[in-house]
Amino acid sequence: MTIIDIIEKKKNKAELTTDEINFFVNGFTDGSIPDYQMSALLMAILLNGMTDRETFDMTNAMLHSGDVVDMSALGGVVVDKHSTGGIGDSTTLALAPILACCDVFVAKMSGRGLGFTGGTIDKLESIPHFDTALSDKEFFDVVKRVGCAVIGQTANLAPADKKLYALRDVTGTVNSIPLICASIMSKKLASGADTILLDVKYGSGAFMPTPELALELATKMVAIGTLAGKNIGALITDMQQPLSDHVGNSLEIIGIVDVLRGKKNRLYYEIREVALRLLALTGKYTLETAEIAFQDAIDSGSALNKFAEMVKAQHGDESYILHPEKFEIGRRDVVVAEQSGYVSGMVAADIGRAVTHLGGGRMQKTDAIDFSVGVIMKVAIGSKVKAGDPICEVYHNGKGLDEAKRLISNAVTISKNKPAEHKIAYAFVSRDGVEMY
Amino acid sequence: MTIIDIIEKKKNKAELTTDEINFFVNGFTDGSIPDYQMSALLMAILLNGMTDRETFDMTNAMLHSGDVVDMSALGGVVVDKHSTGGIGDSTTLALAPILACCDVFVAKMSGRGLGFTGGTIDKLESIPHFDTALSDKEFFDVVKRVGCAVIGQTANLAPADKKLYALRDVTGTVNSIPLICASIMSKKLASGADTILLDVKYGSGAFMPTPELALELATKMVAIGTLAGKNIGALITDMQQPLSDHVGNSLEIIGIVDVLRGKKNRLYYEIREVALRLLALTGKYTLETAEIAFQDAIDSGSALNKFAEMVKAQHGDESYILHPEKFEIGRRDVVVAEQSGYVSGMVAADIGRAVTHLGGGRMQKTDAIDFSVGVIMKVAIGSKVKAGDPICEVYHNGKGLDEAKRLISNAVTISKNKPAEHKIAYAFVSRDGVEMY
Repeated sequence: MTIIDIIEKKKNKAELTTDEINFFVNGFTDGSIPDYQMSALLMAILLNGMTDRETFDMTNAMLHSGDVVDMSALGGVVVDKHSTGGIGDSTTLALAPILACCDVFVAKMSGRGLGFTGGTIDKLESIPHFDTALSDKEFFDVVKRVGCAVIGQTANLAPADKKLYALRDVTGTVNSIPLICASIMSKKLASGADTILLDVKYGSGAFMPTPELALELATKMVAIGTLAGKNIGALITDMQQPLSDHVGNSLEIIGIVDVLRGKKNRLYYEIREVALRLLALTGKYTLETAEIAFQDAIDSGSALNKFAEMVKAQHGDESYILHPEKFEIGRRDVVVAEQSGYVSGMVAADIGRAVTHLGGGRMQKTDAIDFSVGVIMKVAIGSKVKAGDPICEVYHNGKGLDEAKRLISNAVTISKNKPAEHKIAYAFVSRDGVEMY
Repeated sequence: MTIIDIIEKKKNKAELTTDEINFFVNGFTDGSIPDYQMSALLMAILLNGMTDRETFDMTNAMLHSGDVVDMSALGGVVVDKHSTGGIGDSTTLALAPILACCDVFVAKMSGRGLGFTGGTIDKLESIPHFDTALSDKEFFDVVKRVGCAVIGQTANLAPADKKLYALRDVTGTVNSIPLICASIMSKKLASGADTILLDVKYGSGAFMPTPELALELATKMVAIGTLAGKNIGALITDMQQPLSDHVGNSLEIIGIVDVLRGKKNRLYYEIREVALRLLALTGKYTLETAEIAFQDAIDSGSALNKFAEMVKAQHGDESYILHPEKFEIGRRDVVVAEQSGYVSGMVAADIGRAVTHLGGGRMQKTDAIDFSVGVIMKVAIGSKVKAGDPICEVYHNGKGLDEAKRLISNAVTISKNKPAEHKIAYAFVSRDGVEMY
């Protein structure tokens, strides 16, 4: 078996065997297959596709390139949720404590932000002393004792994916559904959960531009997860505008505390949808009983207390959760509507970019983050505005203010006619099929 | 402009601009674009194709990556002929002197053999003292004085092609018609001829398996050459069996002397077809007047004398041309027919491989060649044989004999029924269109 034979085979639209897929994933990871052969194969895969079986084998080979977390000693249901990323997506911060209140374990490894997307780990680090780099043992102990913990991804989870992604990023081979699927699923399957909910986003702030493409990716990921023996489902959700009206690191923690206190905004409804679907997937709940448990966790204040408990267990100052006014926030400025009408569209990615310009995100992996900056959107798609009304509050420390305001102003489209309603979810996919909203 | 943008564009089936094509050819040649990005682009080109305009621009960029030979000071018509390669293809050795006798200049740069194909330069070097590495000035002087000369390709002709081909060879990106076309045409257009005949072969000993694919490649190359302002045409010819019954280095020189002495075998008819088409392309001849000139060059003995004159001008021992029995040839063995019937097919490539096993070709670029070994086929497709009849004489010096005999025996198929006739040529392509044989 040679890598050239494998390239030729995929180039000619043939299906690769399990052995062939293991050969190229292992060979690329150990350096025996050079970048220039791997990139030719990646392009052939992108253009000629992979079957579910091939994608499963590739996921599996990548998964076994590093450590596989074993959470079975917890002696309970371990759930995980993965979002394909977006703007103002702080759902994990609320879901972890809510689900822990519903008697399942949440042992979550999250990422940092890059470019226009924020990262859960960065948001948590805006809480003084919060530790996102617990040892394996401490992580396990916090999950067991509190019910939930959120840490950064350990270095040795699916190292093949890390190396493959770096190559895909510079060879135009990112936007392949099988390759995206193998990349996400290899990490998800390595992280030790038995029940997984994928939140696949579409729209101007997401990787997938349309709900149809998001559904295609979701269907493939659910097929792979099911083949791997997981309880898995995927929600296709809207990322045509920031998910939370709060965008920025400390600001998103403040927004999450609002939700945990029962504020019923878009973020709240999205979190509820994800929680209900995830709880139902475990088999311990129906959608109806899950709704009752969810409501109780919020209404009783136990979800908010659980968040504070998790923060404290991870060495953070939990008083910031109970008194979010303690967060230092930048100076306030506003962006106003240039004309009257209805907000008909947003380039969500540009609102993310605005926050990055303010210092709240990273252009390069090594950039430091200013947790205190960000924006609070005062409008959503469908809002009626008059010229001169504030559409966005900008919190800044001087850096990048003009560029951020310009980006936000251009990102928000105001039209004469009221736009169609934007639903939070488009579809739910599970082993039972596709359910449209 | 970045290479990633260009990869994305071709991946999405868009047409690249001239600037984009110059950017990636120049960037890859100067090393600013790494192999792993170029191989992804090559795979995208292979799978998504290139228009004639793109192929022309790529050819042009590769052509201008090195020297461009200027033969205008010869003050006459300069012709060139290119074969896509095969087994027993020694046509250049006869065409050069024949065409020189017909009042056109032949300034030919040829290649060495690798794998199962022989190379014109190796065959010429079997003539004692023959110099295939003349200086530019001496090459020009021999062409001007004798009318023809054949040398090895100088290092700086289309260096972009050399680097690209090395990458294509190890990334499964060889068999792309636009890439093959740009590779061949960049060298052809750099070599200074104004009239070019391409001999595009198909069959078991050729790069293109079918006449249809050979015609597709030929049509594209003729389009590119025409865009470049050349008189250009292409013959599609049969390589389902060795072109000459003599295969090997000294043996092919002996076979060519037979043709120049008027022996009318398959090689003779192929050479005549190429010569007539090439002479007609120059505009100095019609097919009819070309045939008269061709016949006269052979019948008068002037073509054979011209070959000897060229050999002498290139410091070779011309007595070997006038007395080919002087060539030292290996020991004789034979392969016999295992059954009676008609020869219905040959794996021409395996006959080439047999000669390589005997030491007459190279597995690696640096291997030395034994000029004295090779084979003389005693049958052709359509021959009637009885079990035990010799089908091939093998000339060897001990090395690789058993393997060579086994390869040849397996390469020749004998069937009960007489096969359909194999024509030498399938089609001729020029700016005027396609003419079928």
